[in-house]
Amino acid sequence: MLAIVITRRELLSSMVAVSASAVLPDLSFAQARSSDLRINADRLRHSLEELSVFGRPAGGTFSDGVSRVAFTDADFAGRNYAMQLMRAFGMEPRIDPAANIFGLRPGSAHNLKPILFGSHIDSVPSGGNFDGDLGSMSAIEVMHTLKEHGVTTRHPLQMVIWTDEENTFAGSGSAAGVLQPADLSRVRIGISLAEGLRKVGGNPTRLAEARLSPGAFHCYLELHIEQGGILYKANVPIGVVEGIVSIDEYDVEIRGFANHAGTTPMKERHNALLAAAKLIEVVQEVVTREPGRQVGTVGRLQVFPNAPNVVPGLVKHSIELRDLSEETIARLGNEIQKRAQEIARDTGTEIIMEKAEHDAPAGADLEMQAKIEVAATELGLKTMRLPSGAGHDAQMMAKIGPIGMIFVPSVDGISHSPKEFTRWQDCANGANVLLRTILLIDRATP
Amino acid sequence: MLAIVITRRELLSSMVAVSASAVLPDLSFAQARSSDLRINADRLRHSLEELSVFGRPAGGTFSDGVSRVAFTDADFAGRNYAMQLMRAFGMEPRIDPAANIFGLRPGSAHNLKPILFGSHIDSVPSGGNFDGDLGSMSAIEVMHTLKEHGVTTRHPLQMVIWTDEENTFAGSGSAAGVLQPADLSRVRIGISLAEGLRKVGGNPTRLAEARLSPGAFHCYLELHIEQGGILYKANVPIGVVEGIVSIDEYDVEIRGFANHAGTTPMKERHNALLAAAKLIEVVQEVVTREPGRQVGTVGRLQVFPNAPNVVPGLVKHSIELRDLSEETIARLGNEIQKRAQEIARDTGTEIIMEKAEHDAPAGADLEMQAKIEVAATELGLKTMRLPSGAGHDAQMMAKIGPIGMIFVPSVDGISHSPKEFTRWQDCANGANVLLRTILLIDRATP
Repeated sequence: MLAIVITRRELLSSMVAVSASAVLPDLSFAQARSSDLRINADRLRHSLEELSVFGRPAGGTFSDGVSRVAFTDADFAGRNYAMQLMRAFGMEPRIDPAANIFGLRPGSAHNLKPILFGSHIDSVPSGGNFDGDLGSMSAIEVMHTLKEHGVTTRHPLQMVIWTDEENTFAGSGSAAGVLQPADLSRVRIGISLAEGLRKVGGNPTRLAEARLSPGAFHCYLELHIEQGGILYKANVPIGVVEGIVSIDEYDVEIRGFANHAGTTPMKERHNALLAAAKLIEVVQEVVTREPGRQVGTVGRLQVFPNAPNVVPGLVKHSIELRDLSEETIARLGNEIQKRAQEIARDTGTEIIMEKAEHDAPAGADLEMQAKIEVAATELGLKTMRLPSGAGHDAQMMAKIGPIGMIFVPSVDGISHSPKEFTRWQDCANGANVLLRTILLIDRATP
Repeated sequence: MLAIVITRRELLSSMVAVSASAVLPDLSFAQARSSDLRINADRLRHSLEELSVFGRPAGGTFSDGVSRVAFTDADFAGRNYAMQLMRAFGMEPRIDPAANIFGLRPGSAHNLKPILFGSHIDSVPSGGNFDGDLGSMSAIEVMHTLKEHGVTTRHPLQMVIWTDEENTFAGSGSAAGVLQPADLSRVRIGISLAEGLRKVGGNPTRLAEARLSPGAFHCYLELHIEQGGILYKANVPIGVVEGIVSIDEYDVEIRGFANHAGTTPMKERHNALLAAAKLIEVVQEVVTREPGRQVGTVGRLQVFPNAPNVVPGLVKHSIELRDLSEETIARLGNEIQKRAQEIARDTGTEIIMEKAEHDAPAGADLEMQAKIEVAATELGLKTMRLPSGAGHDAQMMAKIGPIGMIFVPSVDGISHSPKEFTRWQDCANGANVLLRTILLIDRATP
C-alpha cells in the first residue's frame, strides 16, 4: 500500500525544494513500481459476470448474452450495479444531466486537466457481455487498482460510463454538444429520450450543463472489444485504433409499379425489387473493386406490398458506406448514385437515393496511439494499428479533445450477438494496457 | 315477354309428336330471337355500383376501390346485397355448407345437367370493383334477362357466387373436393376458416355435402376481367381463355451470418441479402431467356435482422413460377435451384429452396373456347386466345368438368388495386358473350 506519486518536474520544483538528483531516484522508483502495477484480472472478470445478470434472458447463463437497452429496467439496474462497485472502494459516483456516470480520482497537480476514460454499459437487443461493458468495468478496475496500491497520478483521473451509446449517443453526444434539444422528443422502446434520461437520473431540462468545453480534459481513452475479426484472425492481442471511420448512410426508395405476378408479362413489369437486386450488387461491386478497408452494406430492405403473387411496386432500403476517409465514401456514394440512375432506366423504375446521415471520421491522436503501443510493448503484448469500423463514444470526444482507443480481439469477430466473446486474458490485457497508457500519459506531461 | 324455348331434338321427339318441319321453324325462330337477346347494360352497371358500397373506404367513391375480404362484415353485406338482387326477380338463393350462393333456373329438359356459371364477390384488401364482381353481377344479370324475356333453356341454369376466392378458394375448393378438413382451422383476419364460413351462412361440419361429383354439371363458365394488359394493349374486347396457368411457389431461405456492418471486412462477410440479390437476378434471367409466356416473380422478401448497420444474416423470400405448361415451370425451377447452389458457394451462404405449393394447370375445354368465339363473333366482337396468369374458381371446376372462361380488358392491365377498371361497354360485352355462349351451348347439346 505504498503511495506512489507520479510527479512532474515543474510541480516538484515549484512545490518542494529538492535537488535534481533527489528527484530522479523518486521518478525511477515510481516508474519501476508503475511498471509492475497490474489490474486484478479475477476481479475484472467477476464484475463483468456480475454485470451480465442485468438484462440476461430469463433462465439463461452468461453465454446467452444480454439485452440491456438504454433506459430499460435492465439498464437502470446495471447502472446501479456499476455505481455500487465504485462506492465499494470509496469512489462517489456523480450523475450529470445527460445521466452519464462519472467517478473522479484527484491528481496531485491541481492545474492539470483530467485524463478521461470509460465506455458504456447499454447494449443492443440480444447483444453480448463485452461491447461497452469491458471498457466500463476496466475503468472501474483501473481506479480500484490505483486506489488499493495507493497510486496518485499528477492528472486527476475521471472515469465515465456514457448513457445510451447504442442508439442515440445521448451521453457522449451531450458532452460533445452534438445532441440537439429536438432529439429529446425522439421516442424509442415506448418512451422519449427525455423520459429515458429522467428515468436513469438525468435532467433533460439542464442538458446543456452536461456539455464539456473543448479542452475540458487532457485526453480521452477508451478500451473496447474490436467487434470485428481482424485482431483475432491475426492473433494480435492489442489493437491501436487509428480512428473511427466516417459513415455515409443513404435512404433509397425505388418506385416501380405493383401488379399481378400472374398476369403481367415480364416485359411489362416495373419491378422495384429487381431494381433493388441490381443496386445491391452494384454497391458490392463499387465498394470492393478498389483496394482499401472501405465497406458498404445494404442492411435494411423492405418490399411493398410484399406478397408472393404481386410484382413489387416499392422497395425502400439503406446503403451505408464507411471508411476512415470521408472523401473515399463520398466518391463511392456518387458512383453508386450514378449507377442507380442507369438501373432505374433499365428497369423502368424511379430510384431516389438521398443521404440520411453523415458521420465525420474521428481520428485518434497520433501521440496517444504511440503511447498505447509503448504501454503494450512494455507489457510484452504485440500491437496492430487498425481503423474502427464501428462507432464509439470516443468519436464524440474526438470533437473536443485528443482521443485514443485500445482494442482487444473478439473471438471470430462476432459482436452485437449473444455469441460475442473476448477471452478473459485478452480482457485483462486490455485493462492493463489502459492502466499503463494512463500512467504513461500522466508521466509524459511536461 | 314471349317465351322462347330453346329445344333439343331428342326432347321434342320424345315428348311431343311433331314433324321435323314443325320443329325447324321453332328452332330458327328461337335462334333469331336469342340472337337479339341482350343483357341490360345499365342495370349491370347499376348493380356493380351498388355492390361497390360494401367495403368501400370511408368517405370514398366508386373509384376508391373496395376492401371486401371474405368473411368480413363488408363481405357479409355484399353477399346479402347479391341475394337481394336475385330475389328481386324471383330467384331464391340457396347457400350450401361452403357458403356458396346458388341460384337455379330450371330447364325444359329434365334429364340434362345444369350449365353452371358465376364468379366471386370477395376482394383482396384495397382491391377493385371488377375482379369477381363483374362475373357475379353478370351471372345475375343473365338470369334476370332470361327471366324478363321469358326464355327457358333446355339445360337448367345454375348461377353461383363462390366463397373466398381470393385467399382459400373455400367455396369452389369445397365443390371440387380440394379443401381439406385441416384447412378449416386456418386462421386469417382473426378468425378461422370454419368460423368465417359459419358467419356467412355456411356449415363447416357438413362441408363434404358441398362437394360436386364429377359430371354434376354440363360445363362451367366464368366471365372475369383479365387482370393483365394483353387485351387492353391489343384493343381486343373479348379474351378466350386457353387455360389457367400452373403455379409453382417456392420458399427460399438464405442463411448467411449477421455481423457488424462497420467492422466486418467485405471479404469476411456471409451476406444473405447479397445472395438474395443474385438469386432475384437469376430468376429474371432464367425466366426471360427463352420465348414463351412464362413468368417468374420474387414478390415477398424479408431481411433479418434488417438494420442499416448489420450485414444481413438471413433472408427469406418467395419464388413463384407460372405457365400453362407445368413441365416448363418444373424445368425453370430446377435451373434456378441449380444456380442458387452456385450462388450459395460464391457468397458463403446456405440456400434452401423448397417447393411450397404446386397448382396444376387447368385447361379450358376446346369446345367451350370455340363456342365463346362464335358467340363473340356473332356479337361483332373480336377475340383473342390467351392463358390466364391469375388463378380463378374455374380452375377448381376444371377438376370435375369442362370449363370456359371469358375475359374482358382491364384498363392499363391494372388489377388488385383501387385503380382496377373495366370500361362499362366492355363489361356489357362480356355479359352478352356469357349469355350468348350459354345459349349456344344449350342449343348445341344433341
